[in-house]
Amino acid sequence: MTRNIFGNVFTLTSYGESHGVAVGGVVDGMPAGIDIDLDFIQYELSRRRPGQSKVTTSRSELDQVELLSGVFEGKSTGAPIGFMVRNTNQHSKDYDNIRRLFRPSHADFTYYSKYGIRDYRGGGRSSARITIARCVGGALAKLALRQLGVSVQAYVSQVGAVALDRDYHRYDLSKAEENVVRCPDEMKAKEMERLILEVKGKGDTVGGVVTCVIRGCPAGLGEPEFGKLHAQLGAAMLSINAVKGFEIGDGFDIVPHYGSEVNDILTTDGLRSNHSGGIQGGISNGADIFFRVAFKPVATLLMSQPTIDIDGNATTVNVRGRHDPCVVPRAVPIVESMASMVILDSYLLNKTVKL
Amino acid sequence: MTRNIFGNVFTLTSYGESHGVAVGGVVDGMPAGIDIDLDFIQYELSRRRPGQSKVTTSRSELDQVELLSGVFEGKSTGAPIGFMVRNTNQHSKDYDNIRRLFRPSHADFTYYSKYGIRDYRGGGRSSARITIARCVGGALAKLALRQLGVSVQAYVSQVGAVALDRDYHRYDLSKAEENVVRCPDEMKAKEMERLILEVKGKGDTVGGVVTCVIRGCPAGLGEPEFGKLHAQLGAAMLSINAVKGFEIGDGFDIVPHYGSEVNDILTTDGLRSNHSGGIQGGISNGADIFFRVAFKPVATLLMSQPTIDIDGNATTVNVRGRHDPCVVPRAVPIVESMASMVILDSYLLNKTVKL
Amino acid sequence: MTRNIFGNVFTLTSYGESHGVAVGGVVDGMPAGIDIDLDFIQYELSRRRPGQSKVTTSRSELDQVELLSGVFEGKSTGAPIGFMVRNTNQHSKDYDNIRRLFRPSHADFTYYSKYGIRDYRGGGRSSARITIARCVGGALAKLALRQLGVSVQAYVSQVGAVALDRDYHRYDLSKAEENVVRCPDEMKAKEMERLILEVKGKGDTVGGVVTCVIRGCPAGLGEPEFGKLHAQLGAAMLSINAVKGFEIGDGFDIVPHYGSEVNDILTTDGLRSNHSGGIQGGISNGADIFFRVAFKPVATLLMSQPTIDIDGNATTVNVRGRHDPCVVPRAVPIVESMASMVILDSYLLNKTVKL
Amino acid sequence: MTRNIFGNVFTLTSYGESHGVAVGGVVDGMPAGIDIDLDFIQYELSRRRPGQSKVTTSRSELDQVELLSGVFEGKSTGAPIGFMVRNTNQHSKDYDNIRRLFRPSHADFTYYSKYGIRDYRGGGRSSARITIARCVGGALAKLALRQLGVSVQAYVSQVGAVALDRDYHRYDLSKAEENVVRCPDEMKAKEMERLILEVKGKGDTVGGVVTCVIRGCPAGLGEPEFGKLHAQLGAAMLSINAVKGFEIGDGFDIVPHYGSEVNDILTTDGLRSNHSGGIQGGISNGADIFFRVAFKPVATLLMSQPTIDIDGNATTVNVRGRHDPCVVPRAVPIVESMASMVILDSYLLNKTVKL
Repeated sequence: MTRNIFGNVFTLTSYGESHGVAVGGVVDGMPAGIDIDLDFIQYELSRRRPGQSKVTTSRSELDQVELLSGVFEGKSTGAPIGFMVRNTNQHSKDYDNIRRLFRPSHADFTYYSKYGIRDYRGGGRSSARITIARCVGGALAKLALRQLGVSVQAYVSQVGAVALDRDYHRYDLSKAEENVVRCPDEMKAKEMERLILEVKGKGDTVGGVVTCVIRGCPAGLGEPEFGKLHAQLGAAMLSINAVKGFEIGDGFDIVPHYGSEVNDILTTDGLRSNHSGGIQGGISNGADIFFRVAFKPVATLLMSQPTIDIDGNATTVNVRGRHDPCVVPRAVPIVESMASMVILDSYLLNKTVKL
Repeated sequence: MTRNIFGNVFTLTSYGESHGVAVGGVVDGMPAGIDIDLDFIQYELSRRRPGQSKVTTSRSELDQVELLSGVFEGKSTGAPIGFMVRNTNQHSKDYDNIRRLFRPSHADFTYYSKYGIRDYRGGGRSSARITIARCVGGALAKLALRQLGVSVQAYVSQVGAVALDRDYHRYDLSKAEENVVRCPDEMKAKEMERLILEVKGKGDTVGGVVTCVIRGCPAGLGEPEFGKLHAQLGAAMLSINAVKGFEIGDGFDIVPHYGSEVNDILTTDGLRSNHSGGIQGGISNGADIFFRVAFKPVATLLMSQPTIDIDGNATTVNVRGRHDPCVVPRAVPIVESMASMVILDSYLLNKTVKL
Repeated sequence: MTRNIFGNVFTLTSYGESHGVAVGGVVDGMPAGIDIDLDFIQYELSRRRPGQSKVTTSRSELDQVELLSGVFEGKSTGAPIGFMVRNTNQHSKDYDNIRRLFRPSHADFTYYSKYGIRDYRGGGRSSARITIARCVGGALAKLALRQLGVSVQAYVSQVGAVALDRDYHRYDLSKAEENVVRCPDEMKAKEMERLILEVKGKGDTVGGVVTCVIRGCPAGLGEPEFGKLHAQLGAAMLSINAVKGFEIGDGFDIVPHYGSEVNDILTTDGLRSNHSGGIQGGISNGADIFFRVAFKPVATLLMSQPTIDIDGNATTVNVRGRHDPCVVPRAVPIVESMASMVILDSYLLNKTVKL
Repeated sequence: MTRNIFGNVFTLTSYGESHGVAVGGVVDGMPAGIDIDLDFIQYELSRRRPGQSKVTTSRSELDQVELLSGVFEGKSTGAPIGFMVRNTNQHSKDYDNIRRLFRPSHADFTYYSKYGIRDYRGGGRSSARITIARCVGGALAKLALRQLGVSVQAYVSQVGAVALDRDYHRYDLSKAEENVVRCPDEMKAKEMERLILEVKGKGDTVGGVVTCVIRGCPAGLGEPEFGKLHAQLGAAMLSINAVKGFEIGDGFDIVPHYGSEVNDILTTDGLRSNHSGGIQGGISNGADIFFRVAFKPVATLLMSQPTIDIDGNATTVNVRGRHDPCVVPRAVPIVESMASMVILDSYLLNKTVKL
């Protein structure tokens, strides 16, 4: 996995910038013969779209996806699937004032250090807008996983200090899509919404956590020793903008415990517990796979901040434009997309383990 | 890449099982002309060796490494470096009683599900012994990084509930190697040691956290959008046995904070803070890179546990043999090794970004 | 890499079918800061276009390329370059009669065997039209190679039995573009043209050879032992439709010779001969690299041929449509494109051999 | 495919130099559950061994292979298979006189240009001795292919100007192993032997051709558009030392023909002809796959040749040591090994094309 190509046998090649002509990609390795439901792909895209609600940025991008190849008479052909979403609602002028500045905690300085180019328009390649390609890739993976009976569902489990219980069994996850923050607990969702609006009112931002649960995953997926299933999931999540942490199963909370407390005992009726999160030794065991992903507060603040310019001089940055006060509601479909691609890729790769 | 090959242009291919003939690997892409200090490689291996102290397993493996190729007149030639450590001190008989059992929270069941083979001898390929290959690969990477002025240092920051402060600046990291738990705080180290011995006395185990700090890393490393530097570091860490969580910079702790609190302000004197952990947008910014890795308690308990056998019948497992009550002291060099390989690989790959 | 992704650090991901929405791709790993001359890219595309002359198919595709990302203010940014050419002039109806047939010596039967899908429209993914993506990738590579002083030039050296002398020094290669067959020898070009028109008149086709010469390539490119430079060039050429053979330097002609006749002697004035074709041990030596590529006659004949249908029954195929009687004139830019991508990729990868 | 790692899901990582400690490798992706016949692997190695007969070099290397991992109770486990052959019969002193010289048409100059290191001992990494790793990888692949009913057989079809008929059906290929040149035609074999001995007597060398036939390969293997089956076979062959050309099916000989002569007509009884060599559009069609590989004369001559030294001064080289006057007899098992690995890899990868 490197640069703009993700996956091993099911691969996504991604391209595009926030304010370029288009954002898109190519899915190579989509199994042949899968029903391609274009409405579903468009629906998945709409879930990440800005302007969905008052807790997200007010940009209203249409984000109409066009499939360019790889589908014939409604089915995948085994050929690569090219796709594209044209950029239509860019306000590049919003960025004129940062043309020669580096915004704090953004990728501005590091991209300039690495490539020697300052593409100041909306973050360029580092913009969250490019996750569109991930969503389309993820939607295609979901269509294949659906035929395998695997479901991937993510939800917001924390915003700022407002947190759900870690145990996802306590919630009806199907309710996550019923509110603007994508939290399955109605009361907590209200609290989170209030917090986000409060933060937004100050021009500030706040962090959050997304939890993801994968059900129906067969035992045997994952490729030790370096392609352990949770290592691949972790890499996928940590490649999402603003992610600072990943934990599988009990994660960091398992540290203070004794082995005798947290070993998952195998019984004739299945596992007695699932502290491991559905993966042992890097290979799925057939139980639910679940993990948590930490997102930092969005770096773009609608307030004045000190910084330096391209020549190293001290200055002040005042960002305009439309931005999310909290990224997690819109990150939910991205987390699902990345997880779906990893699981499908692992499923396919696992077929090569035996003759 | 995947399975038993790690890295992009600096790659480690790993092989071996706990109780097979040998454990070893091949490093391909080692830059030519690097001084190969065999004593240093052997020293690094000795740091992961069992039997170092009373807090680790009492197996005393010699683990003598032999370099088989790729070095001529004391320097790397650019050819692949094959290496091998023969297994000499296996007690395969210790495992006779688990021949047809699956140990709880081990990889026994999942390996059998995936490969259809039950290699019961000491965990086979899933054994921690195979990290020897990682140590040798890491030592070679360190020799190259040394010439670049990059240092990679890890230490134990938590055992059970005994935890250091998160801020690594409070400690003199060079002291980490002075005690058996590899904790730079002498007092905490004593506490940790007591806890481990207490747990060991009960035949139980306990979890821990390793923190790693990388200094001297130049700005510009990391390959968005999928090869973000922390995504590669995370994948590397999550591929280590028993790891359940990874966080970069402030990690999960950043979630409750506001952007205005945790943005890393650029000044003419450098960064005012480093909540991001030295990476922005997936690319190093020249500041220290630091991250934390959570290890679960070792799954092997010296006590009776219920489980099932290969035919699905309920039974009881009693593990004999020599095992670590807590994995983190010996995990320190593994964490360093993986981080060193990621940084060197990223350094080399970054050279291809410009003509 | 494999499937629809080509290259190691400079990669082309390709998509599209003959009669789909569009043909395109993504170039990832284009060095940052290269001047992107869109006119040049369009010119390169026009060289492979059908309908250029009476010796090629009469389809007149506009093939207007659109760059979708990765370029800002006229320079490559280091971000992936997405591109697309819409299909506008498809006559899908031409293919109605082969909907349930397999054309002889085409990919119809094998694609159906592999993917279980019959995309009968103009060959689908196996169509020569998809080489558009290769041309764009090659044009981008040429823009970078230009800055390095490397030139890549191919020409037609044989059509049917009409052949040039093997020694490319006898010709002024700059004249290759002056005639419709792309042969630098005006007299032979006329002969070749006559042969092609004669063959075309019968609804038949004929094979040919393309020779390629790379000048200015620095010593040191190529990555033994499996990534030998000529192995990469060979794989690139053999991946072009209709190619059946590849030879570097003297190729098959070297077989009857003695070592004492064909060893390339090193002198203080450079090499005394170049039987090896500029590569020794898989690494360029600084001399001209040259190789030959054999193309079979186009399989599409405008005559009646026996065949079988999708159910295995005997039938007859009569192909309509517009087709090339000889593929080599239009293959010249494809050969150059693939060679250019291999050389640039090798150049970049070679930078990682030393610290 | 790059550097010292070959393949996609069945991979061989190779290491070792002619006069280093050992030559070996790691096979990753060997399917689990295959019977591992160590005698067969050793037999395959003995086929490439020097000193088999008077037409090969008189070095008599024992080349005893040791499998280090990945096999348990006689079967592959799905874990990587490490293996090693110790070097025992090196005469490094034979090379003292070339310590500062570049031998003509060898890799001496190019390796030095690339890596900045002069490993003069027997060619170092560029030595043919390192094909041992290919033979072991190939033997393992053959063991898996045997279970699939696929056979891979190569033979010498030309030495110097002494050539067999191109049509392999004229020969009983099982007779190829009955003579020292591995040519299935007894009379021609005698002629070839005489030629090689004559050339050897002069301290000279001569080129040759190896033909390879793959029977029983199922339809559907090969991964367009860049991983076409013959492109992978070609790359594999061109990566073998001294190879200068590759052709599939009729190869270069097809060029003067008309499509109407060489199209392979599909009938209800199978293909009427096989000019394509068992592959259409890059995918196997179930017919025999056959190809030819051209080898140049060995560059090492036992005679005086002019050359330059490491400082660019003119000098003379006189090589001592034991060398092959013609490489093709010993190249036969290498060709088979590479082809076997490509076919098995393609077989496994093809399993991922459908759910």
